[in-house]
Parts: sequence; C-alpha cells; structure tokens
Amino acid sequence: MDAAALISGLKQGDTKSLARCISLVENNSGPCEALLFSLQHRPEIPVAGITGPPGAGKSSLVNALTHSFVASGKKVAIIAVDPTSPFNYGSLLGDRLRMSELYLTPGVFIRSMASRGSLGGLAPKIHETIDLIKNAGFDLVLIETVGVGQSEVEIAGIADTTVVVMVPEAGDEVQTMKSGVMEIADIFVVNKADREGADAFAGHLRRLSAQKHTAKWMSPVLLTEAHRNIGAAPLAEAINAHHQLNLSKEKQLDLMAEKTAHLVREALARKVQVHRIRERLSIQMAHPDFNLYRFTREILQDT
Amino acid sequence: MDAAALISGLKQGDTKSLARCISLVENNSGPCEALLFSLQHRPEIPVAGITGPPGAGKSSLVNALTHSFVASGKKVAIIAVDPTSPFNYGSLLGDRLRMSELYLTPGVFIRSMASRGSLGGLAPKIHETIDLIKNAGFDLVLIETVGVGQSEVEIAGIADTTVVVMVPEAGDEVQTMKSGVMEIADIFVVNKADREGADAFAGHLRRLSAQKHTAKWMSPVLLTEAHRNIGAAPLAEAINAHHQLNLSKEKQLDLMAEKTAHLVREALARKVQVHRIRERLSIQMAHPDFNLYRFTREILQDT
Repeated sequence: MDAAALISGLKQGDTKSLARCISLVENNSGPCEALLFSLQHRPEIPVAGITGPPGAGKSSLVNALTHSFVASGKKVAIIAVDPTSPFNYGSLLGDRLRMSELYLTPGVFIRSMASRGSLGGLAPKIHETIDLIKNAGFDLVLIETVGVGQSEVEIAGIADTTVVVMVPEAGDEVQTMKSGVMEIADIFVVNKADREGADAFAGHLRRLSAQKHTAKWMSPVLLTEAHRNIGAAPLAEAINAHHQLNLSKEKQLDLMAEKTAHLVREALARKVQVHRIRERLSIQMAHPDFNLYRFTREILQDT
Repeated sequence: MDAAALISGLKQGDTKSLARCISLVENNSGPCEALLFSLQHRPEIPVAGITGPPGAGKSSLVNALTHSFVASGKKVAIIAVDPTSPFNYGSLLGDRLRMSELYLTPGVFIRSMASRGSLGGLAPKIHETIDLIKNAGFDLVLIETVGVGQSEVEIAGIADTTVVVMVPEAGDEVQTMKSGVMEIADIFVVNKADREGADAFAGHLRRLSAQKHTAKWMSPVLLTEAHRNIGAAPLAEAINAHHQLNLSKEKQLDLMAEKTAHLVREALARKVQVHRIRERLSIQMAHPDFNLYRFTREILQDT
C-alpha cells in the first residue's frame, strides 16, 4: 500500500491503517518519513500516563478509565509498555489479561510496545506512535507502564498528565519513596480504597501535595476501586482539567522542545555503525598506545 | 588536585584518588579527558555482572564471591547499580545493607551508581568507571544490578561474564521467562540451594543450557547457599574460566566496538541542547504548517 492511501486511511480513523502505520514507523521502513511529515500537531488531545509500583492496579484502572471515557462518547487509544526484562513476572502477564476485554470494545485501540534495552526506558518510537494515534481521530491516549525500572520517570516526559497509582499499604513505604514520585505526579490515585488505611494514606498524600503546589495546579488525591469501576469518572475529569494547563504557549514550547531533543538524540544514535567502528578498531587496537577514549573522540569527529 | 597527581594516585591503587577520579568523570568536570586519555586497555581483568530477579540473593552472592576472591589474595571492586525508579522497595535497601560489611574489608572497593532516567538503563559512566577501576590495580570487577527493568539485558553488553542468579522457586516461572535469560547467561546460579526443588530446577537449566552451548562454552549451572558462603569458590573458578574466552582477538574487537559505539552515542546525545531547540521552536511552531518531524530533521542537520 502506498503512503497516500495509508495516510488517507489513518486520517479517516481506520484502525488497520493506524496499526500498519505504527509498524512501519517502528521498523523505520517503507514510507515512514512521508507518513510522519503528513502528521498534524494536535496538542488538544490529552496524553495521560498511568504509572505506579507493580500490584497497584494500573491495568484495572486503565480499564475503568477507558470505560468511563467510552461511555461519554470518546475514542480511547491505549499504549501498554511491556518490559524487556528477561525475567517475566506472572503478575505482569496477569495485568495484560485483565485488559483483554478492552480489545473487543468499540472505540478502543490497544497497542502493546516493548520497552527497549539499549537506549532509554520506554518504547523506541513512542512519540511517533502517539502522533499517529492523534491523527487517527482518537480523543485520548492512555499510556500504561509496567511499574518497574525507569519508565516511571520517563513517562512524565512524554505524557501531558502523569497519574501515579498506589495502594493503601504503600503508606508505610511512602516515607522512603524518592522525591521523584512527588515530582512526576500530576494526579495521585489511591486504588483499592476499600482496604484499611486508604483515608489516612490519602490524607498524607494531600499534605505532601499541598506543600508542592504551584499557582496553577495542586495534584489532587483521588480514591478509586478500579476493579468495581468506582472513582473512574472523577479521575477522567481531573485528567481533562490538568490537560488544559498544558495548552499554554510556554508549556507547549517546553514539551515540544523536549520531544524534539529526544527525536534528534534517537536519530543521532542510529548513525553510529558498530561494524564500521569494528573495522577501524581492528587496525588501531594492535597499537601498544591504544586508548579507547582517544579512539572514541576520533570516531565522534567523523560521525 | 591536578590531573597528573590524580593519575599517579590512581595508578598506585590509592582508593581515594580512584573515588575522586570516578566523581570527576561522572560529572564530566575538571581534568576528565586527561584522566581518560591516560588509561590503559586492560582486557585481562575480568568484569562479571551479577543479575537476576529481586529476592534471588544477588547481594549475598556478591558478598560470598568477594570473600572468596579476597581469600585468594585478590583485590575486588564492586559496582552496585541502584535504581532511579521513584518507587523504592524495602528489599532493595535491605540488599545494600547486607553488603555493608564489605565496606570495611581490606582490598575491597565499593561504588554505588544510580541507574539513569533518560538515556539507557545502567549508570551513565559505567564504562569509564570500570576502566578507572582496572587502572587502579584491582583484579576483578563485579557489577551488581537491581534485578528490575532493563539493566539485566544491558549488563550483558558491559560485563565479560554474566552470572544469572535464581532461586529454586523460579523453576515454576522459568517456562514463561523470555529467551533473553538464556541468551545473556554465561553462568547460571541456583542460590538458596537448600530449598526444595533446587536439584530439579538445576537439572532443567542444564538441559536448556546443553541446547544452546557453543563449541567453546556451555553455561554451567552452579548451586550456592550464598548466605552460608557455600558454592562461592566454584563460581569464582567458573568466572575466571569464562573470562579466558573473552581474550581472543575477535571477541575483544566485538566487545570494544560495542563499547566505542556506546560512548559515541553518549557524546552525541550530549550535543543536543534543549534550550536552543526551544528558541527555534518558538519561531517555527506558530506556523500553521508546522510539522515536528520536518523540524527534527532540520535540527539534526545542524547538530
């Protein structure tokens, strides 16, 4: 299929075209550049990242949130970032199973992306995937991370709104939590709120949140019971409210500058060709004065 | 202190000089380049990565292994890679406490490095740190990962020998483990081998290992009880034996080419200046035909 037909399909909201476009971009193949050059800037579509430790109920929350948006007539796209860690955890697989019913829900698009090994935590083409989805007529993009490793911090750089999900039991651990959580959370969710300690934990988070609020936003603390669909609607409202802040010109410039920097770094990294370096090394390494860092500077100058 | 004095201190094995050199390199400050240009290529010193899921006993094993090497008169450096995930887990902190007695052991150097958020899983200057350590007269470098996220895969690209540690209970999960574990493991350790199922699990791993062995190496499966110091000596021998394979010219070229490529990518990434991109964006984003990917190509051409 040629680029024009794919782009036309994408812009008409055809999910098969969308899926095909994402695959082409992921593999850097076919009319990939033409596709990307045809995309419109769509800041008005919110991108929310759902993060939190394993077991917090992120997938159930994504599920509940999606149903809440769909019920109000919106089309929702979900990007599920799966770990590349070679150690698979049963719980993570279980999470994905809990989301499986969404695959059959009209107006919902789900794409699973592998996090990557070598160059950053989230999926390699996540920015491009988000832009393709936005151009296919979705009203909201939800990104769910696996809750291990560094994807938690990176999600904040990619999503407009970062939702940090925790369970009441996390109250004991929140003392030792790195300040990073406070930094990245635009919205706190205490999920499984029917469990003991939920109100006390929420109160604690509210006090922390009050300390770091800005003139424009104080991260709200919401209680949910995602598996029973309780609390999803107020969360959806909070996501929409927070997203409005991102539409200011200054904030847009910040977000887009970071995004461009990320894309440029990726493109630069692809220029580095290991086999060429190996050829040059095979000559130079034999020299008794060989120094890796001087050699690296040489390669850098020629890249 | 000037570069010459620092380099001289480093090469005499002064651990304060070593620690100072690592800090300078981490912060890219002071005589950082002069330090790196003075380093010798030391492939004969083994670098072993210890990885595995949380709770497998990696820190106890590093502890036991270190004592085993020290008992045979060797100087051991340990790099402990800590997570940047904002969600701290008590167990990880506990791991570090279990290693604390090593801080007082003569001939042992420990450096804790934070894994990074934005550009890859392991610590930003891990290659440079390893080379500094090698030049300070250590006989062995052990790298311990936290066992979550992607550091497991990356460690295999950095260490000469990757040791994958698991507990007997992992036997049930090994079916669902990604093939990545088999790919990266040069040595398997079944730790806490006094627990039920250890022999059966080890037998299973041996059969898997036999399927993927090469002419030169079949990953051995060792049983250990690290907290009681059982099994450390055979593991130390296996690490030494595997390291010999890495000394071939072809293997050295592979390893060094990958390492150079990594260093070049890092240096390229540092060239990208977000504030400059933001300035240009502030002019171009106002244009109704603005396209992020065309803009990215422009920036790339000027970088």
